[in-house]
Amino acid sequence: MAASSSVLIFFFMFLAISSAFPKNKDKYKPCKHLVLFFHDIIYNGKNAANATSAIVAAPQGSNLTILAPNSHFGNIAVFDDPITLDNNLHSKPVGRAQGMYIYDTKNTFTSWLGFSFSLNSTDYQGTINFIGADPIMIKYRDISIVGGTGDFFMHRGVATIDTDSYEGEVYFRLKVDIKFYECW
Amino acid sequence: MAASSSVLIFFFMFLAISSAFPKNKDKYKPCKHLVLFFHDIIYNGKNAANATSAIVAAPQGSNLTILAPNSHFGNIAVFDDPITLDNNLHSKPVGRAQGMYIYDTKNTFTSWLGFSFSLNSTDYQGTINFIGADPIMIKYRDISIVGGTGDFFMHRGVATIDTDSYEGEVYFRLKVDIKFYECW
Amino acid sequence: MAASSSVLIFFFMFLAISSAFPKNKDKYKPCKHLVLFFHDIIYNGKNAANATSAIVAAPQGSNLTILAPNSHFGNIAVFDDPITLDNNLHSKPVGRAQGMYIYDTKNTFTSWLGFSFSLNSTDYQGTINFIGADPIMIKYRDISIVGGTGDFFMHRGVATIDTDSYEGEVYFRLKVDIKFYECW
Repeated sequence: MAASSSVLIFFFMFLAISSAFPKNKDKYKPCKHLVLFFHDIIYNGKNAANATSAIVAAPQGSNLTILAPNSHFGNIAVFDDPITLDNNLHSKPVGRAQGMYIYDTKNTFTSWLGFSFSLNSTDYQGTINFIGADPIMIKYRDISIVGGTGDFFMHRGVATIDTDSYEGEVYFRLKVDIKFYECW
Repeated sequence: MAASSSVLIFFFMFLAISSAFPKNKDKYKPCKHLVLFFHDIIYNGKNAANATSAIVAAPQGSNLTILAPNSHFGNIAVFDDPITLDNNLHSKPVGRAQGMYIYDTKNTFTSWLGFSFSLNSTDYQGTINFIGADPIMIKYRDISIVGGTGDFFMHRGVATIDTDSYEGEVYFRLKVDIKFYECW
Repeated sequence: MAASSSVLIFFFMFLAISSAFPKNKDKYKPCKHLVLFFHDIIYNGKNAANATSAIVAAPQGSNLTILAPNSHFGNIAVFDDPITLDNNLHSKPVGRAQGMYIYDTKNTFTSWLGFSFSLNSTDYQGTINFIGADPIMIKYRDISIVGGTGDFFMHRGVATIDTDSYEGEVYFRLKVDIKFYECW
């Protein structure tokens, strides 16, 4: 096969896909699918023993033990949260969710996420890397899976996040529906 | 088609493309193309009402209302900027640019960007996720589009950023030429 | 070739690859391969002249010149580190590693990385964008290459990081084995 013709086929394939399935992600079937939960307990000055995250940056006038006014705009939190297979904080963790979230709107609650799942269980060994916008007040939010390693080598996909539970501003639990569309 | 032969074709295609178009991105035609503007007004201690971003981290000796010395090295700003179709700050926004920039050089102005476009217009509904190095003093800078959701489901591409206008250290406007090379 | 059949071939190819090489990245051959080093000198309050990174965020009770207790949990450092072809800090740099690392575990040393290589040499002109989890105490750690520009236009891959050397908490040198599996 000549180089030029394989290039043509490559482009034709992408164009074909792009036009065949406009806007409809439900037409794509994941090549791998996981549902996991992670649990975040924010440090508030009193819960050092069991907090899993901490505010490490804040806008002028705010401090590091109380989330900032104006929808926490400007707070950055670093987290190391247990990942579980079900919605129970006390279930045996299958890995850690580690990274940061940034509150980035003044008049509603939205955040920007940059984090990784490090999975270490009998089923999965590897990392999954996520970034994306998280409009917290919406039930289901999609973020990007931009890469992975180990069992998730070179994978890409979309994760749908859902705030499964929360308690005031100290605890929240996210359900993460991980759909890979590129598997290697 | 046997598994082994389809794998061979897959590799052959990538090798062919890699060697056929060395270094020349102009040979690739985007499968989707958008040009958008976003507008950043940095909080300076006096403009709380209309500021769209805030310094939230700074190196030792600096504060959160004045960008740091040494080319602002070490400042992290969180932003929630309006996106417009033209270069007018007061045009009707089609979405929000949300995330952070980090000033990361001591002797010139460069930043590291991690942010998302959340578009919500009649034309587009979805998010686009960007990361990359932004050498601010250069006219045209390329960053990576690492994923997307909604209308931009699983898209990848390159965005060319251009500082379209700025006023001192309070306002800047970026023109973003978004070229997707992987559309789904 | 009809749109529907090319879509089928596309999916078939991915399925074939996914099942043919379960979990074994060694079966894939990189389309491009680079080995580079970068050098980080953390500002400690006394080494302003030659420090290449600075702590810019810390949890409550910590400061910006001493890494925090509890495995530095919550520290964010911004860096602008020279990249060299060999392990000598004083070799001529071929580019800069710029971005941030976040210490994100309380009881061991792990970090979350978001950074770019900006290469500017006779061999390479362009940027490489990385994110991922870095469990520092493990010898070889894999992170994701999520995009690139210039000579690395649209590339993806995996980078294996190895702490080649360190001196206390002021200097460390990382060896980065960059393997691209998608080249354009």
